[in-house]
This record gives sequence, C-alpha cells and structure tokens, in this order.
Amino acid sequence: MNQQLIEMGKRAQQAANQLALVATVAKNDALNQMADALLANADQIIAANQADMVNATKMPTKFQDRLMLNQQRIVGMADELRHVAILQDPTTKIDRGWITKDGLQIIQQRVPLGVIGMIYEARPNVTSGASALTFKSGNAVILRGGKEALRTNQAVVKVLRQVLTSSGLPVNAIQLIEDTSHQVAQELMELDQYVDVIIPRGSHRLIQAVVKNATVPVIETGAGNCHLYVDRDADLTKATPIIINAKTQRPSVCNAAEKLLVHQDVAAHFLPSIISQLRQHGVEVRGDERVRQIVPDVKAASDEEWDTEYDDLIMAVKVVDSLDQAIDHINRHSTHHSEAIITEDGERGRQFQRRVNSAVVYVNASTRFTDGGEFGFGAEIGISTQKLHARGPMGLDQLTTIKYEVTGNGQVRK
Amino acid sequence: MNQQLIEMGKRAQQAANQLALVATVAKNDALNQMADALLANADQIIAANQADMVNATKMPTKFQDRLMLNQQRIVGMADELRHVAILQDPTTKIDRGWITKDGLQIIQQRVPLGVIGMIYEARPNVTSGASALTFKSGNAVILRGGKEALRTNQAVVKVLRQVLTSSGLPVNAIQLIEDTSHQVAQELMELDQYVDVIIPRGSHRLIQAVVKNATVPVIETGAGNCHLYVDRDADLTKATPIIINAKTQRPSVCNAAEKLLVHQDVAAHFLPSIISQLRQHGVEVRGDERVRQIVPDVKAASDEEWDTEYDDLIMAVKVVDSLDQAIDHINRHSTHHSEAIITEDGERGRQFQRRVNSAVVYVNASTRFTDGGEFGFGAEIGISTQKLHARGPMGLDQLTTIKYEVTGNGQVRK
Repeated sequence: MNQQLIEMGKRAQQAANQLALVATVAKNDALNQMADALLANADQIIAANQADMVNATKMPTKFQDRLMLNQQRIVGMADELRHVAILQDPTTKIDRGWITKDGLQIIQQRVPLGVIGMIYEARPNVTSGASALTFKSGNAVILRGGKEALRTNQAVVKVLRQVLTSSGLPVNAIQLIEDTSHQVAQELMELDQYVDVIIPRGSHRLIQAVVKNATVPVIETGAGNCHLYVDRDADLTKATPIIINAKTQRPSVCNAAEKLLVHQDVAAHFLPSIISQLRQHGVEVRGDERVRQIVPDVKAASDEEWDTEYDDLIMAVKVVDSLDQAIDHINRHSTHHSEAIITEDGERGRQFQRRVNSAVVYVNASTRFTDGGEFGFGAEIGISTQKLHARGPMGLDQLTTIKYEVTGNGQVRK
Repeated sequence: MNQQLIEMGKRAQQAANQLALVATVAKNDALNQMADALLANADQIIAANQADMVNATKMPTKFQDRLMLNQQRIVGMADELRHVAILQDPTTKIDRGWITKDGLQIIQQRVPLGVIGMIYEARPNVTSGASALTFKSGNAVILRGGKEALRTNQAVVKVLRQVLTSSGLPVNAIQLIEDTSHQVAQELMELDQYVDVIIPRGSHRLIQAVVKNATVPVIETGAGNCHLYVDRDADLTKATPIIINAKTQRPSVCNAAEKLLVHQDVAAHFLPSIISQLRQHGVEVRGDERVRQIVPDVKAASDEEWDTEYDDLIMAVKVVDSLDQAIDHINRHSTHHSEAIITEDGERGRQFQRRVNSAVVYVNASTRFTDGGEFGFGAEIGISTQKLHARGPMGLDQLTTIKYEVTGNGQVRK
C-alpha cells in the first residue's frame, strides 16, 4: 500500500474529526469565501485548464466540452458554492429522541460520515461541487478526478485549500490525489481504515469498476435504464408530452427514458402517432415484433437492448398484453432508477407504484424529475440506484450517518 | 458460479416480490403458526439436533451449548416468533410526503430491502429468529448457517416452510443452503444479481471474512472494543457499579466494556478500589505503566491489546492526562461501537458525546444498554458498527429501504 496515500487518509481522518465540530456559520463563511476566491483566481484556473485542453485535443468533442472551463463556467462553480452555503447543515439535525424504560435519554443525532472518497472523470466542476457538499456536511473529501483534468483540479483545489487555511479551518478537509495512476485509484478503494465511503461519479463503466474492486463501502449512482408504460386507460394527450420530455429533453442523463411499453389495447391507435413524433424529435425508434407489425419501418430491437441504457436519442418500444406483463418486464430489465405509468385508472397506477421495484415510481409524470433539485433537496451529490443507505436523489442528508447520544445518571443493565 | 445457488437466488427474488405485497395480518398469522409448528414438531427438531450434537462432541463446551436444543429452548424460539408478530410492520410506514414546486406529490414509503443473505455459525436459534425478522419486514432470506448445525437447521426450516405453504404464502421467502462448503458461502457473497445485502453474525473472524470477500453490500455487525472513561469530576459511587456491570454482567457480548481509562486526578484514589472490586468479580486486570505504579501487581498490557476485543473477563486499564487524551485514545483504538464517560460535569459529558466517533456514546450509564431491546426497538437483527445504512442496534426498520412514489397529472420538466 502506497505510504503517501495512507498519510493522506490519516490527514483526512484528522481533518474530519475537527471539521465535525466546526460551527455551521464558519462553514458557510468559508464556502462564500471559496466562491470569491474562485472568481479572483479565474485567470490562473483558466490557464491551467488550457494546459489540460492542449493535451486533450484527440479526445471526443463531448469530452473536451466537459473538461473546458471559461469565465462563465467559473461563475457557475462559484454560484454553486454560494448555493450550498445557504442550505441547512444536515449535522444540526436531531432525527428523534426518547426516554427508555430505564430512564435513559436517547438522542438520535445526525453526524458526518467522516472521510468520503470521490472517484470521477475529467469534469472540473465536480471538483468544486463535491468539495462544497462534503464540506458543508462536515466530511473530509479525498478527490480522485480524471487524469486529463489534473492541472485544472490542482488549480481549483489550491484555491479552496487557501481559504481553509486563511479561515483557520482544517486544510486537509479537501485533498486531491495528484498521482492519477489506476494503481492509486485502486488503493483508495481499499483504504478501509481511513475512508468511510466511496462515491463514484461518471460512466457506467467507471461506476461498475469501483463497485467490483472497492472494499470500502460504495454508493452506486447513476445507471438509468428507465421505462415509460402507457396503460390501456392512459390519457394519450398526457402520454405524448411526457414521452417526448422523458426521452428528448436531455437524452444523455440517467433519468431520461430509454424504453416505452404500450398496452396492446391502445397500441394500434397510439404507436403510429408517438413513433412519428419521436422521429420528428430526432429519436431513432426500435421495436419488438408487435410494434413492427403496426409500424413496419421500425428497426428490430435486439434481445440485449432491453437491458441497455443508450444515453442517446434512441428508444426501444414494446407492446405488452397487460399491466402485469409491463411490471414483470420492468422488474426484470430495469436498473431500478425511475419508471413511469401513464394511466387514468387510480388503482392501476397504485399497483404499478407498489409493485415496480425502483427508487422512484411515477404516475403521469416524466422520469426527468428524479433529481435532487426537482425533489426540493437543494443539492445533489448523485442518484443512488442501490437500496442500502441512500436510494434515489442524494442531498446533504445522505452524506451523514447517525450517532446515539445516551444520557443517564448511573444506570446499569439488570 | 453454482447453478443451484443461482436458482435459489432467482426463487428468493421472486418470493420477495410477492411477499412485499402480502398484508401485515397474513404475515403475523403465519408467524404465530410457525411458533405453534415449532412446538408441535419439537421432537423431530430435537432428534435432528441430537444427530448434530453427536458429531460435535470434540467442539468446545461453549460451542456445544450454543448448538444444543431442548424443549425449553424451542419454547424460547417459538416465543420469539410470537413477539415479532406483534411488532409494527416497518413496510406500513410512510416516512414523509410533500408537494414539489411543480405540483408533484412525493411519498417516501418504507419498502423491504428484497433478498437478505444471513451467514452465521452453528446457532439454531438464529435460523428461526432471523427468518422471523426478515419475513416480518417483507424480505426473502437465504440462510447459510454453520455446518455443524445442518440437520437442526434443516428440521427448523422445514417446519417454517410448511407453514408458508399451508398459508398460501411464497415458500421461497425462507430458504436454507444445504451445501455447507466454503465455496458456496463465497458464491453467496458474490450473488449481486439476486441478493441485496449480506448480514454476517458470529465471530469477529467470520464477519471480517465476509466484509473482505463479499461483492454484495454487507452490514458489518458486532465488533466491540468498548471503553469506559472515568473523568476527574466523576461521581465514583456511580462509576463503580457501571464499570462492574459493563465488564462482568455478560463479558462475551459485543457491548461489554473491554478498556477502562481513568483521569490522572482520580487515579491514585480510585484505581486500588476498582481493581480490587474487578478482581473480586473474577476479572483479570492489565494496565499501563502509570496504573502499575499505583497498583504494582497489575500485569502489563501489551501495545496490541489496546486494539483487542477480549470477549472475556479481562480488562485493560490506562491513566490519561485529560479528557482530550481520553477521546483521542478512544477514537484511535475503538471499534466505534459503544463508549461511556462517567462525569458530573455536563459540559465535559457533552464534549465526550460530540467528539467520540462511536455508534452509541453514553454519559453515566453502562455500555450494556446498546441493544435493540433495551433501546425499545422490540427486536434486534444485530448491532451495526459501520456508518452506512444502519448504525448501532438494528431493528425491523433497518431491514427496509425507501421508495419514492410520485404522482402527477401530466407534468414534464422544463
């Protein structure tokens, strides 16, 4: 094990112990100062970013766009820091309290998780955003960003750490791993003694690699093979805008819909119209046999496709016999992120919500609402697709755990 | 991967999907019938247990005692099933609900985790107890008990499954792995596609092996290197009974105290008395240099010992300079289970509770209260020493996750 990484883990744990005791107002002041400092140092950050960009000219345009910083994007990063400053500090919350039969007072207090490892791709805005959320919730963070963004990340983290130092706060609450080898990322995932949780953000491949290789607990985020189901009693004037919105408003994100199931009773009437409208929005439609009987020029969907997240303007469509078949198909093929039914029948909507095993289950609304901001959480560190600890959009509360503070006056157990 | 285990996983998942929709009253009826059936079949269960006992004659007495069943112990197992029947069904709980800015109604509903893998030692009462808790919370369970208890477990599980069948409930909600090889246990820990969480119960060695080898999420339970700290302002008439209770009332369990820290200001006065009383209760006392200066016949504690859980009538004692040093020592050496301060100074008690990073932090009470029953949770599946998902005593609620049920009337995201 890399001695430098162990030392970084020790420093993070020490910083976390200190930060857990810092008053909310001091954390908020620091976040606002970090925002000011990002703007004041924008030139240096942009210069560092340009050096990164020069080395990334062979990467895809999408990749370069995510890596690129300009004045406007730094303003966006600063705004995010200020926004986190005004959110409630989750560690000031007491969930509940009670008195036991022996007269012990038990307080269930929210406390920081401790040290959070973030493993992500070449997106400098995650560097400042994740730092803000972990810092506000009282956690120390160890950042391991994509190697193509190293100079930019160094410049951003330098600015954030300068504010910690000048504010008298534990500077090692924010640390960046500068060795971008796979070896060190792997060692971070095994740093059980110092790291409480790893949150990977990025592609499905990155996240799966972390889930498979980490011994530190992981919160799995972001895989979304989301389904829309148009029931036999659907109001088709609601169904159409929901389908167009869920598929096309931002096709690259995890809450975009990838699959459309249509009840057989409405398929002949609805499919020609919705497929035509999806195509007008640039969507490539694929279908099962029954869809192709109704709209013959639809390309056949392959078997594996029903388990695939496209993250693109592609949608596979299937005709189902019944609500039961729709639910079975979804529970078998979904990544359990977000699914929606379009129906006017309240009981069938309720059945769908009860029986579909996904984090968020909608009646008559677009899956695109699965988002910390839209849910009203104020911020989002990711969308959990696992069942343990956090499920669905994760805000500041999900970066905390609980501690029981028990106060007695000499009680012993009989 | 073992095809039989995969089939077991599939059956469990299917059973979990069905069980999630079963009414509470039907689950409670089944639990009461299971209790009746255990008693009605006590003879067969005891016969199976005697066959197991014959093969275990070379095991330690403690081991044999845990394996052994008699009429009275089967009554205890039946009582536990009836007790779980009267607890509130956690999946009937709605945590909260709200309306978003777009008029979506969001309900945060508690739902079962799904399929739970239990890996444990040769303790037949865990077979029925864990089945009851997972069943009541709507989960399917896959049991993998110690090989020495195989016949007993088969007999118990047969009885429980007969009730599921005769009640028209999904019989595969309770399944026992009959292949007790290490290979199959390892494969269960990697059955990500069908198992939602593994809960190991038993020795530190067993739990650490599961944490290290599982790819399925694990809830780590039960390691307890618990500390008591007698502060300079302690009421020593409270301190003494708390120390004796925490160390000696049941030394083999995880919430028993293993270490005693004493503030230097009270050490000379308090140590001779408490060491003498511990010895009267059969405790072997070990100490650091400063303790041995005060009570010279105390054996020296080794360096590694400060990180060791004895689970026995042994206690290591250390003199500390200050509250800070006590907190630092605990945060460095503890397993973060339960710790207690004895002090009359409210602010120092509060500091200890805030700064000690353990699941349960006491002022003026015995660590032995860290228990689902003592906390008032009604039942306990284990005591979590991790921070994710569950921390401290785990009752039925901790065997559930959440689902967001969102209801709209055509909303799309702008």
